[in-house]
Amino acid sequence: MNLLLVAPEELDGSRVVLEGRRAGHVSTVLGAHPGDTLRVGLVGGGRGRGVVVATGPERIELEVDLDRTPPPVPRVSIVLAVPRPKVVGRALEAVAASGVARIDLTRAWRVERAYLASPRLAPEALAAAVWLGCEQGGFTHVPKVALHPRLMALLEHPPGWPDDALRLVAHPRAGVPLEAALAPGDRRPVVLAIGPEGGFIDRELATFAARGFQPVSLAAGVLRTEHALVAALAQIELLARLTVPEPGTGPRATLPR
Amino acid sequence: MNLLLVAPEELDGSRVVLEGRRAGHVSTVLGAHPGDTLRVGLVGGGRGRGVVVATGPERIELEVDLDRTPPPVPRVSIVLAVPRPKVVGRALEAVAASGVARIDLTRAWRVERAYLASPRLAPEALAAAVWLGCEQGGFTHVPKVALHPRLMALLEHPPGWPDDALRLVAHPRAGVPLEAALAPGDRRPVVLAIGPEGGFIDRELATFAARGFQPVSLAAGVLRTEHALVAALAQIELLARLTVPEPGTGPRATLPR
Repeated sequence: MNLLLVAPEELDGSRVVLEGRRAGHVSTVLGAHPGDTLRVGLVGGGRGRGVVVATGPERIELEVDLDRTPPPVPRVSIVLAVPRPKVVGRALEAVAASGVARIDLTRAWRVERAYLASPRLAPEALAAAVWLGCEQGGFTHVPKVALHPRLMALLEHPPGWPDDALRLVAHPRAGVPLEAALAPGDRRPVVLAIGPEGGFIDRELATFAARGFQPVSLAAGVLRTEHALVAALAQIELLARLTVPEPGTGPRATLPR
Repeated sequence: MNLLLVAPEELDGSRVVLEGRRAGHVSTVLGAHPGDTLRVGLVGGGRGRGVVVATGPERIELEVDLDRTPPPVPRVSIVLAVPRPKVVGRALEAVAASGVARIDLTRAWRVERAYLASPRLAPEALAAAVWLGCEQGGFTHVPKVALHPRLMALLEHPPGWPDDALRLVAHPRAGVPLEAALAPGDRRPVVLAIGPEGGFIDRELATFAARGFQPVSLAAGVLRTEHALVAALAQIELLARLTVPEPGTGPRATLPR
């Protein structure tokens, strides 16, 4: 936990009382005592500090001072074919720790139908995973996670992706690397779709294409879903950081902002 | 498993008989039958195809046809402060799946001494993890993993890193992003050091600096070791893929090779 997240409804003025997991983590893992200061963030709001007023194994009371200006919402949204239920939590946690706007889980041809009935895909389980990820990554924007039983329906009625978003679908045999679709310095919002083990089938890729998604290849190695997501988000972040060189200034001008 | 790895000593001409885990995986998970073709790689050698000649739950016999030219050895070497033993295997597997030249695990000030005595850090356990990672990522170069009880000794007697390697140490407060040290298009070998939870201490960072390691920051979010490694390797790979634009050709010239 690198940022203790607090929901707006948990705030009473500048006071917050936490119980359960977060209180246990702060007391036991962080070993915080009254007077100690923690990094605190308000879900959907700013970040700041919290001074521990009182602790117990199951209860912690904080006096918080939070920035009124929330950090910008991350610019990447994820569409993810439902992975094996055993790894869903880890994958969502990793995605949320990297910082994303929203996550749409969807069934696809190569996703077993039974996966969607798993308790690991219950709304509370998904919400808990992204909350943990945001605490790890230090983000106050906790991405909404929606579960779609049909990919076609998701693509027909997109869930509020920005109109100017660049739409990409990861595909190992795309032949077009990420950076050919997303040029260095391009900071547009991105919707990135990642398929199941074995990938999306051709018919699904055709539907993606019809909805403006460009197929791109990501990494040299074949990565597990969790790692493919982290790698893709890291690369998209890096591309945005690179500034486009002015013509005539030469190679060394490709410097970070 | 995306590539069935076979050690040179397991080859008898073009025949190979496998038992144990790999045989079980091929029969049970991949469901291979005689006549089926698998992607096969020779450790330290080429990749190719293997035709299943006979299968059993504990035994598989293949006739292989491998490319005589091994793919190039990955250009990044990793120095990694020993993470919690529980996550070492997963971290090494993730690193190996991304493709690396070698891995040096080291104790550091913020690494508990007891970690080094864990059976999860036994040479066989480390070797098994990178083998699995290479099978996942599709690499035939299985990185050597060495365990160093002292960081200072490792840095004083470096383990055969290329002389021209760019040396980097990840540090969240470096203020210098990765791409300022490793320009787009730079394909030199890289040695990347990643610290323990809480980072390397100042004295350790000073020793790294004295040995030519530049501190760089990697990602916006604070990632778990396993994900920080995957993110860094993905970014280094992307930077190498970017070609440096010719002066005067403008932004759009920053295209992949």
